[in-house]
Amino acid sequence: MKALIPYKKQNAKSRLSPALSLREREHFVELMLRDVVGSLRKAGVNSIDVLTTPSNGVPSDLGVNILLSEHDLNEAINQYLESVSEPVLIIMADLPMVLPRHISEIVAVEKDLVIVPGKGGGTNVLFIRNPGSFHVRYYDSSFLNHCRIAEEMRQSVHVYDSFLLSTDIDEPHDLIEVMLHGHGLSKAYVDSKFGMEGNGRSRARLELLQ
Amino acid sequence: MKALIPYKKQNAKSRLSPALSLREREHFVELMLRDVVGSLRKAGVNSIDVLTTPSNGVPSDLGVNILLSEHDLNEAINQYLESVSEPVLIIMADLPMVLPRHISEIVAVEKDLVIVPGKGGGTNVLFIRNPGSFHVRYYDSSFLNHCRIAEEMRQSVHVYDSFLLSTDIDEPHDLIEVMLHGHGLSKAYVDSKFGMEGNGRSRARLELLQ
Repeated sequence: MKALIPYKKQNAKSRLSPALSLREREHFVELMLRDVVGSLRKAGVNSIDVLTTPSNGVPSDLGVNILLSEHDLNEAINQYLESVSEPVLIIMADLPMVLPRHISEIVAVEKDLVIVPGKGGGTNVLFIRNPGSFHVRYYDSSFLNHCRIAEEMRQSVHVYDSFLLSTDIDEPHDLIEVMLHGHGLSKAYVDSKFGMEGNGRSRARLELLQ
Repeated sequence: MKALIPYKKQNAKSRLSPALSLREREHFVELMLRDVVGSLRKAGVNSIDVLTTPSNGVPSDLGVNILLSEHDLNEAINQYLESVSEPVLIIMADLPMVLPRHISEIVAVEKDLVIVPGKGGGTNVLFIRNPGSFHVRYYDSSFLNHCRIAEEMRQSVHVYDSFLLSTDIDEPHDLIEVMLHGHGLSKAYVDSKFGMEGNGRSRARLELLQ
């Protein structure tokens, strides 16, 4: 199997701007990517493709395959799915709370498709056993899109239930979840910025996120 | 084991008022309670206590024990914990997406305490194997409170990871999750109000929730 991580660094995560500057956000998305790659590796996934645009630098020490595309996300991923013949796990780069056990459990499900919903109707992880019999449609209630496409393509579906994987980091209040339930580089970074040491200043910063 | 459900009907869920009137909210909280009780029963939990205040009517056909208390939530629950000697599952009444399998999995965990976090630092479900060796402290980052109390009382802890159980229904956008991922009476009610039939009017109502 292969893992595919769509990734955007440049001017990423603008909705986090009340909490983090442009430079901080660009640093943080890289740390989140590193945490996602780390959990994939610990779960034994070694073939990792990062899909990005020509202007978006993926750090060279990450040891992943870099795929450049100018197409929009859906078009780029669907071209990818047409080109591979083994199962594909598509995981978003803003899921730093993913654990190796999530990956192991998802790929062990005996269904054609595993969907991990995100808050608000999104799709945070997709495990596609038969990439020739599925295509993606992210944005606009993608959870429903993917359920409908699976039905049309007669692919059996399992919905994987995880709070940690439902939480993509988009807005300041999501950083609270990273502090409380995260791990790795992302948690260390958020702790360093909004630390939970319990003093008045940290408490005030924490409240700013809510 | 026993289950304890704190419940408030009167003027409940005021943050849902942009989407539902007072009367609708009071009806909806009762439907959510029924779904929670239904999932507990399907998981084989028959001793169910609903903790409420004298003015809050629990429907009499629900077949649960009704405990009335004028104390605040923490005080009332802690008095309850002092009075029982068997394991207690405390589950909030606004978790209509709970499934029987969640209950079965939670009570099967071989730890002293199982905490199911809610979004934003809350505690949505607590399974307390030794009620004499624990007390609750809801409100204000209760997840951290409960982790700390467990540590002080030398109780081992498992954090149970579930998107469906992390989603307590507080705000209009939470109703989207009930539509997409819920079941039972709550989902039927939300569907009837904000239906997903795909016509323009429903779509507009759905967008209102976001």
